[in-house]
Amino acid sequence: MSAARDRRFMALALSLGRRGLGRVWPNPNVGCVIVQGDRIVGRGRTADGGRPHAETQALAQAGEAARGATAYVTLEPCAHHGQTPPCAEALVAAGVARVVVAAQDPDPRVAGRGLARLRDAGIAVDTGVMAQEARHDLAGFLSRIERGRPFVTLKLATSLDGRIATGTGESRWITGPGARARVHMMRARHDAVMVGGGTARVDDPMLNVRGLGIDRQPVRVVLSRRLDLPQDGALARSARDVLLWLCHAEAAPTDPWVALGAVSLPCAVEGGQLDAADVLARLGQAGLTRVFCEGGAGLAASLLGAGLVDELVMFTAGCAIGAEGTPALSAMGIGALSDAPRLRLAAQERVGADLMSVWRPQ
Amino acid sequence: MSAARDRRFMALALSLGRRGLGRVWPNPNVGCVIVQGDRIVGRGRTADGGRPHAETQALAQAGEAARGATAYVTLEPCAHHGQTPPCAEALVAAGVARVVVAAQDPDPRVAGRGLARLRDAGIAVDTGVMAQEARHDLAGFLSRIERGRPFVTLKLATSLDGRIATGTGESRWITGPGARARVHMMRARHDAVMVGGGTARVDDPMLNVRGLGIDRQPVRVVLSRRLDLPQDGALARSARDVLLWLCHAEAAPTDPWVALGAVSLPCAVEGGQLDAADVLARLGQAGLTRVFCEGGAGLAASLLGAGLVDELVMFTAGCAIGAEGTPALSAMGIGALSDAPRLRLAAQERVGADLMSVWRPQ
Repeated sequence: MSAARDRRFMALALSLGRRGLGRVWPNPNVGCVIVQGDRIVGRGRTADGGRPHAETQALAQAGEAARGATAYVTLEPCAHHGQTPPCAEALVAAGVARVVVAAQDPDPRVAGRGLARLRDAGIAVDTGVMAQEARHDLAGFLSRIERGRPFVTLKLATSLDGRIATGTGESRWITGPGARARVHMMRARHDAVMVGGGTARVDDPMLNVRGLGIDRQPVRVVLSRRLDLPQDGALARSARDVLLWLCHAEAAPTDPWVALGAVSLPCAVEGGQLDAADVLARLGQAGLTRVFCEGGAGLAASLLGAGLVDELVMFTAGCAIGAEGTPALSAMGIGALSDAPRLRLAAQERVGADLMSVWRPQ
Repeated sequence: MSAARDRRFMALALSLGRRGLGRVWPNPNVGCVIVQGDRIVGRGRTADGGRPHAETQALAQAGEAARGATAYVTLEPCAHHGQTPPCAEALVAAGVARVVVAAQDPDPRVAGRGLARLRDAGIAVDTGVMAQEARHDLAGFLSRIERGRPFVTLKLATSLDGRIATGTGESRWITGPGARARVHMMRARHDAVMVGGGTARVDDPMLNVRGLGIDRQPVRVVLSRRLDLPQDGALARSARDVLLWLCHAEAAPTDPWVALGAVSLPCAVEGGQLDAADVLARLGQAGLTRVFCEGGAGLAASLLGAGLVDELVMFTAGCAIGAEGTPALSAMGIGALSDAPRLRLAAQERVGADLMSVWRPQ
């Protein structure tokens, strides 16, 4: 029952939970480990699609060995009857002696009730073990509950001078294959990949995860106020195979897109363009917890300007394009330097021939 | 006489030599160590201003102990009678038994003759010990001899999106005090600091080294085709205290600047602007071996476009400025991505709150 031992098993539960990143929305990517004596008798994570929950999976694996065991759960077990019976009840019924929890659940339907239910049943409960790491791993779910919007990762891939294409529009490829492979890994760990309409028109992207052999694609979200996107493009053609959600102004013509299999999400307009905050609120309501935005320059500038970026991932390639090139961020209306959004450097790493840097809000 | 021992003493000689960076032009920043048995009996580096040479300094320190000793020299000792007697002669006269050399001198007045003179006198000579490191440290001198121009370091300090000022021209400060202190250290290790005329007009910089207590300032080089610089600016006012070299077109009015104490360097004009290659050739003829260019956007783009940057040092600050901001590189006339100059990532490091990355030609 040492603190080091608790941290060791919780680290394992967290690593299980991380396997659910991008695969379990609208639910949290929880991990659970059940330990009897020195032996791990059950492991589980929230299953793809969000059910069953991690505790259910781990308890099923443990069977009778759960009796008198310690359960390590990365998030407070649920106490409400949703589409599955509450996990707190399941832990009680299994005869678990002790439950160690990393992060508490801010969901008002849980918020302490899961822990209370366990304690009422005479189970020893310890909380806060690796809570910071858990809040990091569960940031998507926590953001949706606490802020009503998904966690937003913004990716930019630029030349040394911050350009994403040459003056003639050539952008493939500024960064190298290593960076592009990394981007596909990042897509796979998010619930959705999001771009602005200009990028959808100019690049005609698929926005899917390739080369990783995954069986579950992130939702593809495209912002287009007027839905003036090519109806014969890669996105339109694949709308029945991979989810395609279109964020647009109320008045936009949705019929052809719904006929193609896309989902329509009407959003507020602000100053002539879709309001990024409202778009994210709609995406949160629709269940998304983690969104990976890949531009273009207008959407990236809107998100940064509105303080809606939780993590910025920059790939910088060793090439110089010059001022005729397309800038990574469009106009932001910033005059005084003190008005420029500031982020702090969280990590830097060489990826193939390129430099990757990660920045977070200050 | 083991290889490891030779490398150890040569590494010491190299570290002595590096102390001369930015201080010994037009001469090479050589280091020398004299070892008698296991004892270091003399150390020297090229003195500030380029004379006396490293070997002279080390021999003077060693005195009689040099007899039968081994001398480690980072560059082949000179063989010609210049403003000082040849170092090869001095080593012979001191009775040194063995000379270990890192890099050979490409100067046609030396080029193997120094080594030949030593061997003729019966001294054992070994070459190529840490030659790569020596060529790196001596890159400025080697560039001047081999390419007729100084080694060029280009520094850019930008926002995340490659901007060096806001739309209203505010640029102080995008990067933090840590990065700025690092820039002053870099200035001190170069013979000259160079900017374009626009930067001189807009920023009114001093371009000196501050906060390091150094007694020797780099030359300040300003490129201005028409010499339309403010004659009451910081550079003009300090022209008698710190060297100010002005690169300009033949026809520019030099009299007021010469009266202020500046040095005039007429250069070729190409396509309406000063020809960067000719500017560097003139600076090389004038003795500079290492030039630190700090912009602006036009000069940086010219140097990169012409393949004249030997090291690019990028400081990236965690702020977003947007497309109204001033780009780090002005137009480069690049259409196809394959025409964009490519550099390779040599190093990356956090400096204060900023990201520093170093790029070299591929």
